[in-house]
Amino acid sequence: MPNRTVYFVSDGTGITAETFGNSILAQFPGKPRHVRRPFVDSAEKAHQVVREINNLGEQEGQRAIVFATLVNREVLQIVREHCKGLVMDMFNTFIEPLEEEFQVKSNHRVGRFSDVARSQEYHDRIEAINFSLAHDDGQSAKNLESADVILVGVSRSGKTPTSLYLAMQHGIKAANYPLIPEDFERNKIPSMLEPHKKKCFGLTIDPERLSQIRNERRPGSKYADLMNCRYEINEAEAMMKRNGISWLSSTHKSIEEIATTILRDIRPDRLIY
Amino acid sequence: MPNRTVYFVSDGTGITAETFGNSILAQFPGKPRHVRRPFVDSAEKAHQVVREINNLGEQEGQRAIVFATLVNREVLQIVREHCKGLVMDMFNTFIEPLEEEFQVKSNHRVGRFSDVARSQEYHDRIEAINFSLAHDDGQSAKNLESADVILVGVSRSGKTPTSLYLAMQHGIKAANYPLIPEDFERNKIPSMLEPHKKKCFGLTIDPERLSQIRNERRPGSKYADLMNCRYEINEAEAMMKRNGISWLSSTHKSIEEIATTILRDIRPDRLIY
Repeated sequence: MPNRTVYFVSDGTGITAETFGNSILAQFPGKPRHVRRPFVDSAEKAHQVVREINNLGEQEGQRAIVFATLVNREVLQIVREHCKGLVMDMFNTFIEPLEEEFQVKSNHRVGRFSDVARSQEYHDRIEAINFSLAHDDGQSAKNLESADVILVGVSRSGKTPTSLYLAMQHGIKAANYPLIPEDFERNKIPSMLEPHKKKCFGLTIDPERLSQIRNERRPGSKYADLMNCRYEINEAEAMMKRNGISWLSSTHKSIEEIATTILRDIRPDRLIY
Repeated sequence: MPNRTVYFVSDGTGITAETFGNSILAQFPGKPRHVRRPFVDSAEKAHQVVREINNLGEQEGQRAIVFATLVNREVLQIVREHCKGLVMDMFNTFIEPLEEEFQVKSNHRVGRFSDVARSQEYHDRIEAINFSLAHDDGQSAKNLESADVILVGVSRSGKTPTSLYLAMQHGIKAANYPLIPEDFERNKIPSMLEPHKKKCFGLTIDPERLSQIRNERRPGSKYADLMNCRYEINEAEAMMKRNGISWLSSTHKSIEEIATTILRDIRPDRLIY
C-alpha cells in the first residue's frame, strides 16, 4: 500500500485505535504513513480533521484509511457524513451486537481512562511502577516478599524493561535481580533469592546477541566479549535449572510477548480478573 | 451485565484484543469477569479454549462474550464453528474491506510483534527506557541535550510514571527533573534546565491530592502537609509561567492521557510517523 496515509481518530487518546489499527495493518505488506489525531471531541475539531483528511486524499490521489474510535455521537456523525476516507468505525461495529446481547444501550462515555486516575486499579499500577523502580537491578532486598515476580538473569538480558512493562500494564510488582560472575564462582544463587525461588522467572538470551548489546555499552570490554557472554549464559541457565526456575529467551521476543508468557506461566491468576 | 464472562482469545499476546475489548465494554454498565487466553496457535489449543468457553457458558447459564484476534485460519475456523460464545471476530471484520481497498490479500501473520525484537524501532524503545531510567528525578544532567522531553514538577506530581510510559510506548527519551523548595527560595529554575526550556513540560496537581499521596509515603511530615503542598504548587506554577513552560494537571488524568497531551503539544511530530 504505497503512499497510503492512515489516520487514527479518537475523542480519547487514540491509543486503542492505534494499537488495533496497527495490528490489522500488520496483515498487509508495506508501511503506510501514520497520523494520530487524539481528543477530537467537538464538532469544530471533527470538521477540522475531516477537512485535513479530505484535502490529503485529493493531494495524494487516493483516500486515506481512517481507524476511528469515536464515542461522541455528534463527532461520529460528522465523520460518517463528510469524511471521504475509508472509515473503519471500530466502536459501533461491535457495540451494536453487544447492545442486543445485553439488552441495554451503551452509555457513549468517552475514553476508557475517564475517572480512572482515582481508581484502585490505577493506584495499584502507580504503586507497582514505584516498586519495580525501587527493586531494579537488585537495588533493594527490602520487601522482596511483597514482589509478585522476581526476574533473574545476566546483565542486559532484558530484565529492566520487562519489569517496568509488567508494572505499568498489569500492576504487577516486578523486582529484578542480576546473576553476576561472583554468583557463578560461588555456584549459588544470590541468598536474597533463596526464600523466593517460586516467584523467580529467568530471562536468557543468545550469547551472540548479548555480546552485541553489551558492546554498544562497553565496546571491547571483557564484559562484552563473546566468550565471556557464552560463559555467563551457560552458568546462568545451569543455575536456574538446578534451582527449578523457569526461563525463556528474550532474543526474538518483544517485551509484550515476554510479559504475557511470564504471566501465563507463573501468575495465570493475573490474566483473569 | 452481571455474571458475564468475557474472553480475550488470541494467537498472539491478546493485548490488542484486551485493549480494544475493554474500551468497548467501558461503554456498558457493570464489570464482567475478564479472562485472557494468549498464544492459542494450534488446533489443539483452539479446541481446548472452545471447550472451556462452552462449559463455562453452560455453568453460568449464559454465553460468554469472546473478543478474538485470530490470524491463524485453522484456529479461527475452529472457534467460528464450535464456540458457543458471542464471538467478536475483530480482525476479519476489518481485514475484508481493507483487502478490497488495497486489492491485495492479507498475509495472516501472527502477532504485531513478530520479528519486532530486532527492529530499529524496538531498539529505540529499549534505549529510550534506559535513558528515562538514567534521567529519573534529576539523577543525571549528562546528555540532557539528547532528551526529547524533560518533565518538571514538584515531588509526586506524576513525572516518573509519565516519563517511563513515554519511553516504553513511544520510544521518547523523557528525562524528568524535580522542582524543590530550594528552587523556590532561590526563585530560579534549576540551572541545568535553563538551556532546555523549550523541551520542558510541567506537571502540576491539586494540592489536596498531592498531600494525600505524600501522606502515604511520609505520614504527618511537613513534606505532606497541605499548607506546604499548596505553597510548592503555587510556586511551581508561577515558576513555569515565568519561564514559558506549558503544563497540565495530572489530578484527574491517566498516564496515557498525560502522555498523549504532551506529545500533541510539544512533539506533534511523534504522532506522525
